[in-house]
Amino acid sequence: TARNLFLLPGDGIGPEAMGEVRKIIAYMNEAMNAGFVTDEGLVGGSAYDAHGAAISEADMQKALAADAVLFGAVGGPKWDSVPYDVRPEAGLLRLRKDLQLFANLRPAICYPALAAASSLKPELVEGLDILIIRELTGGVYFGEPKEIIDLGNGQKRGIDTQVYDTYEIERIAGVAFEMARTRQNRVCSMEKRNVMKSGVLWNQVVTETHKAKYSDVQLEHMLADAGGMQLVRQPKQFDVIVTDNLFGDMLSDVAAMLTGSLGMLPSASLGAPDGKTGKRKALYEPVHGSAPDIAGKGIANPIAMIASFAMCLRYSFNLVKEADDLEKAIANVLDKGIRTGDIMADGARQVGTVEMGDAILAEFKTL
Amino acid sequence: TARNLFLLPGDGIGPEAMGEVRKIIAYMNEAMNAGFVTDEGLVGGSAYDAHGAAISEADMQKALAADAVLFGAVGGPKWDSVPYDVRPEAGLLRLRKDLQLFANLRPAICYPALAAASSLKPELVEGLDILIIRELTGGVYFGEPKEIIDLGNGQKRGIDTQVYDTYEIERIAGVAFEMARTRQNRVCSMEKRNVMKSGVLWNQVVTETHKAKYSDVQLEHMLADAGGMQLVRQPKQFDVIVTDNLFGDMLSDVAAMLTGSLGMLPSASLGAPDGKTGKRKALYEPVHGSAPDIAGKGIANPIAMIASFAMCLRYSFNLVKEADDLEKAIANVLDKGIRTGDIMADGARQVGTVEMGDAILAEFKTL
Ligand SMILES: CC(C)[C@H](C(=O)O)[C@@H](O)C(=O)O
Ligand SMILES: CC(C)[C@H](C(=O)O)[C@@H](O)C(=O)O
Repeated sequence: TARNLFLLPGDGIGPEAMGEVRKIIAYMNEAMNAGFVTDEGLVGGSAYDAHGAAISEADMQKALAADAVLFGAVGGPKWDSVPYDVRPEAGLLRLRKDLQLFANLRPAICYPALAAASSLKPELVEGLDILIIRELTGGVYFGEPKEIIDLGNGQKRGIDTQVYDTYEIERIAGVAFEMARTRQNRVCSMEKRNVMKSGVLWNQVVTETHKAKYSDVQLEHMLADAGGMQLVRQPKQFDVIVTDNLFGDMLSDVAAMLTGSLGMLPSASLGAPDGKTGKRKALYEPVHGSAPDIAGKGIANPIAMIASFAMCLRYSFNLVKEADDLEKAIANVLDKGIRTGDIMADGARQVGTVEMGDAILAEFKTL
Repeated sequence: TARNLFLLPGDGIGPEAMGEVRKIIAYMNEAMNAGFVTDEGLVGGSAYDAHGAAISEADMQKALAADAVLFGAVGGPKWDSVPYDVRPEAGLLRLRKDLQLFANLRPAICYPALAAASSLKPELVEGLDILIIRELTGGVYFGEPKEIIDLGNGQKRGIDTQVYDTYEIERIAGVAFEMARTRQNRVCSMEKRNVMKSGVLWNQVVTETHKAKYSDVQLEHMLADAGGMQLVRQPKQFDVIVTDNLFGDMLSDVAAMLTGSLGMLPSASLGAPDGKTGKRKALYEPVHGSAPDIAGKGIANPIAMIASFAMCLRYSFNLVKEADDLEKAIANVLDKGIRTGDIMADGARQVGTVEMGDAILAEFKTL
């Protein structure tokens, strides 16, 4: 049966990076009979230019129908002053919300070949392997009211609402505990229960979920500000971190930067398993943004996009061996000293987007 | 005329650290005729134990009447399960709110003698000198509704509200621009305007305030998640950072940890200048917490508390020379290799809280 992929390359370096994934898909179809069927749409600024919306209804339907969505990046100075509702990010937020992708998995891995590129001392990040699980469809990103009110007298009021219900916390905690069992079996939950009621509820529900179903996993609670500190001080103390949408946004970016491998980090956003088929809706996306300053020059690093496809193989299609091999291919190419400009080092060979993609594909073929 | 100080040592290592400030106050009264009059109260867990509240009404009155409040630290495992409204932090939050201390100044300075203690590479933090200006009386810390609702069916809903009005943003931006003028004249404003309406308003009002009154200052805007990344990647790019209450909580902790000098960092929380006297209400507080694990052992580092008193000399009493000297005394003592356990280094002499306080006072007397 066909494996349906919907590709949304987006803006900036998104299309270039996606091009390298397309080659891997083609190879897997030819040589491994993988049966991927791809379709493609527009998102972000490119969708706005074409349709006046950050994603068209037709493309939303295709995203909903696909087995997995591969997403590049959105945004750029060109669209800095488009109306709020149709800004590039709105396309991504709508995909997350309408596909109910509540679980965002962000591995913060330090590739050994890149430890020196971290701003942290190498001994603090060598071998780093954290998985941040960020709640992605709730919290202050989507809570209502969310508005700017004119109060008169030249005064306005900006309002956002942080809301979490028990079931939302329960299900994201469940994902974290399940993931921990496949790793070092440790979860650290982060919130601000000392100032936020949603943090109090978060803490309670995570604690109860742990007690009821996952007491074999080691659970720790940390205030989110202290968590940010500890990430900088001693990142290797963490295995799985679970946190809400906004804290997850901040903390996963800090963690990504720690690794020195920002251009390399993938992410997966997963929905709940379907009651009948057990399948999860899913979107895979590099952590880096659209990098408009280097777009179109053929120099962008496609590794995060390719690593996102590896996550897709693993989580959407259970192609575990293929996912492992693709990740191994990336590591091997780095070990050989092949680098794009963003991760260039003394003695390495600098290549462009296409050459990097070719090198990874060539390596993948040998595994 | 008398200079009225209200001391709230609080819990954990707070009282020990405050003891060292008391010596400096006594010396300044004797030798410099400084005219400090001190009174003292309870806050946090110790107030709860005595009065069943995180701060008593009588102590609140004293805090409101004082020229400045010196605050130690609050909290500890002993009070982990007291009711939400009387938890130790509630005392601090009430002080901030009732004294209308909207401007929290958090310098992130890397003491040269401690650059090696940072988890960042020394060249990235040597000479680091950032001032984070955090809005302290608004945002999600205080917005209503703030509650947990029982929805029935075993479901609860936790709600917090992020609210900012134009005037709140205007006045904190004003503080940031004024401070920048005394430094490198650069302000970076951080919010999440791409997902939060309060962020959209924040961005607009900072931009307008800049245009109307501070166009000589260089202004940059950054998304708060990208800001967290940039703090880790290249912290020295920043001069003054201005941001909201919650982002400020996270970002200032990350910045503090970067310096390797967490036990050393002070903060000042200031109100608006009084219409008649021009005086600002103020509270001075170390960035570190109550550290219950080392409390009562005589080993806590009193430097952050002493440096907070230096900020008090500068901002509440305009004793600029004395503030400079006290800060210089701290730096000199560190240069001499005198260290508490938390900042111990090879070849240094390890001392306790009292010895460290004595060494700084002795140095201060020579300046
Ligand atoms: C683009 C933006 C809306 C998004 C977010 O804030 O979630 C991004 O920062 C991310 O982390 O995926
Ligand atoms: C103790 C707590 C309420 C406080 C805060 O969150 O503001 C602390 O983390 C701080 O940064 O001063």
